[in-house]
Amino acid sequence: MKPNPLSRFLLVFVFAATMAGGASAQTKDPMPSWSNGVNKSAIVAFVTAVTKEGGDAFVPVADRIATFDLDGTLLVEQPLPVVMEFANKYVEEVAQANPNLQTQPYRAMREGDQTYLNANYMQVLTSAGIGLNEDDYRQRVKAFSETARHPRFNTPYVNLFYAPMRELVAYLRANDFKVYILSGSSQGFVRGIAKGPIGLPNAQMIGTQLVLEYQGDGFTRSGAFRDLATVGAGKPLIIEYQIGQKPIFSFGNSSGDQAMFEYTTSNKLHKNLSLWLEHDDAAREYAYDSGVKALPGLLKVSMKNDFAKLFDDE
Amino acid sequence: MKPNPLSRFLLVFVFAATMAGGASAQTKDPMPSWSNGVNKSAIVAFVTAVTKEGGDAFVPVADRIATFDLDGTLLVEQPLPVVMEFANKYVEEVAQANPNLQTQPYRAMREGDQTYLNANYMQVLTSAGIGLNEDDYRQRVKAFSETARHPRFNTPYVNLFYAPMRELVAYLRANDFKVYILSGSSQGFVRGIAKGPIGLPNAQMIGTQLVLEYQGDGFTRSGAFRDLATVGAGKPLIIEYQIGQKPIFSFGNSSGDQAMFEYTTSNKLHKNLSLWLEHDDAAREYAYDSGVKALPGLLKVSMKNDFAKLFDDE
Repeated sequence: MKPNPLSRFLLVFVFAATMAGGASAQTKDPMPSWSNGVNKSAIVAFVTAVTKEGGDAFVPVADRIATFDLDGTLLVEQPLPVVMEFANKYVEEVAQANPNLQTQPYRAMREGDQTYLNANYMQVLTSAGIGLNEDDYRQRVKAFSETARHPRFNTPYVNLFYAPMRELVAYLRANDFKVYILSGSSQGFVRGIAKGPIGLPNAQMIGTQLVLEYQGDGFTRSGAFRDLATVGAGKPLIIEYQIGQKPIFSFGNSSGDQAMFEYTTSNKLHKNLSLWLEHDDAAREYAYDSGVKALPGLLKVSMKNDFAKLFDDE
Repeated sequence: MKPNPLSRFLLVFVFAATMAGGASAQTKDPMPSWSNGVNKSAIVAFVTAVTKEGGDAFVPVADRIATFDLDGTLLVEQPLPVVMEFANKYVEEVAQANPNLQTQPYRAMREGDQTYLNANYMQVLTSAGIGLNEDDYRQRVKAFSETARHPRFNTPYVNLFYAPMRELVAYLRANDFKVYILSGSSQGFVRGIAKGPIGLPNAQMIGTQLVLEYQGDGFTRSGAFRDLATVGAGKPLIIEYQIGQKPIFSFGNSSGDQAMFEYTTSNKLHKNLSLWLEHDDAAREYAYDSGVKALPGLLKVSMKNDFAKLFDDE
């Protein structure tokens, strides 16, 4: 078909409109809460390279898999991982509502027996939600995250997702990455707390799974973990089971993420980037060592230097 | 902004072009291998209803989850499930290549001991691929499906995905459904054989998982199943673990899919549709009873009456 003058005019019009939109999108900083520096530049350079069609490092959309740890990476994990705060509150409520309940950990919780509770924190974790419907459990986690307050920041936990990390997730998704959370915390907890602030579908929020009982239209939580904890080698394993592709991007903060870093940086098919967040900012947050070991292809992000601001409500 | 004459003209132009495209898409039958009848009509009516914005039954894209069984639903499963054909050939090759190997099931395979092999088919299944890298295993399954021939149809197994079902999957995906395969066959097998003909990412091809060993850059297959077989209640359970949302559409063919039907038809939030394929066509394929029980919201599809053609190369 030969273009007539009208269609040529329309083409120019559409082209001009597209270019204007493109330029505007480029000039807007997708990660304003990051300080300018080598790490922000490395992230932007990586995303630019793997999304440039025809470029040497181009990665097809189907292979743009990114995996993030939750506690200490997307969300504050001090003085306690939030899943532990939730479990403590849950078990305490059950203990108070059933003053004759003598089984553990309810008795220890009622009596304030910290020695028992510290030695048996896994029992506290798995007790929080036994017998609950999984949907109801997620709703309770969500309600907790919107009402219970962090002891230091005095704001609901849902506000303690790091703004720079939320921007990074959004930036990757805007560039057609499929983003997953891989957390050692229980999967129902991850889905309950992260859905609002991070906005991923449940299929992309993975955590350590409990044995569930199928009830015809839903699932009841047991007090037992399934076979695999989503930490250490459990992260690559759950990637293979539930994603089935090697990531090109990963972000964590602790030794529990080391195998995820190792697996991602072993990607020989595609350019890849891994980062870990060092908590080195006692003034604004906390300073602690999480045992990450250096690895080629793994960059260290400093909260103190790379995060211009920490939270959205600052 | 007040529209000027030019922008009004452009709007009309774009509107007309959109309508023309829409009409053209509507008149092309998305499922030509289905006979016209109540089942095809029910599928089209369902998809039309849940995708109609502003309609009573509209379902947001994020909730359009569809789950399909593999063997006997997407792919011929007689005289043996294809995973069993693959395992038999694999174990036979190992047995022939290692004539001194006295362990089972290799000795029985070499000696043609059908009594042993029939009684221990699970051992044959799990032996096919022990110690292999999972990627290599998937490649071997793919190569098998493209070369080994079905005893009756005398064509590679990859050609024995039902054309009406491939069209249905494509039709759902074109309407923004997220389609999953949930198969009792081993997950590596499902991903190896279905990737080409169905075209889903690995994350959406789920099967019974083996215990895998993490090797730093990949995974070695063990000979043991993980905790959960993806049949019966295992289907809803894996839906909750790996998808985390109740489907609005499911398609199976046997008693192993009954719990998946039950779970899908329990969807109270959204309109839903489930179907099962009855193999009632000995002339063109096979006729056998797979033990599906009637359920409100579950439609029976007759291969004989509803499939205008079975395979693409007919």
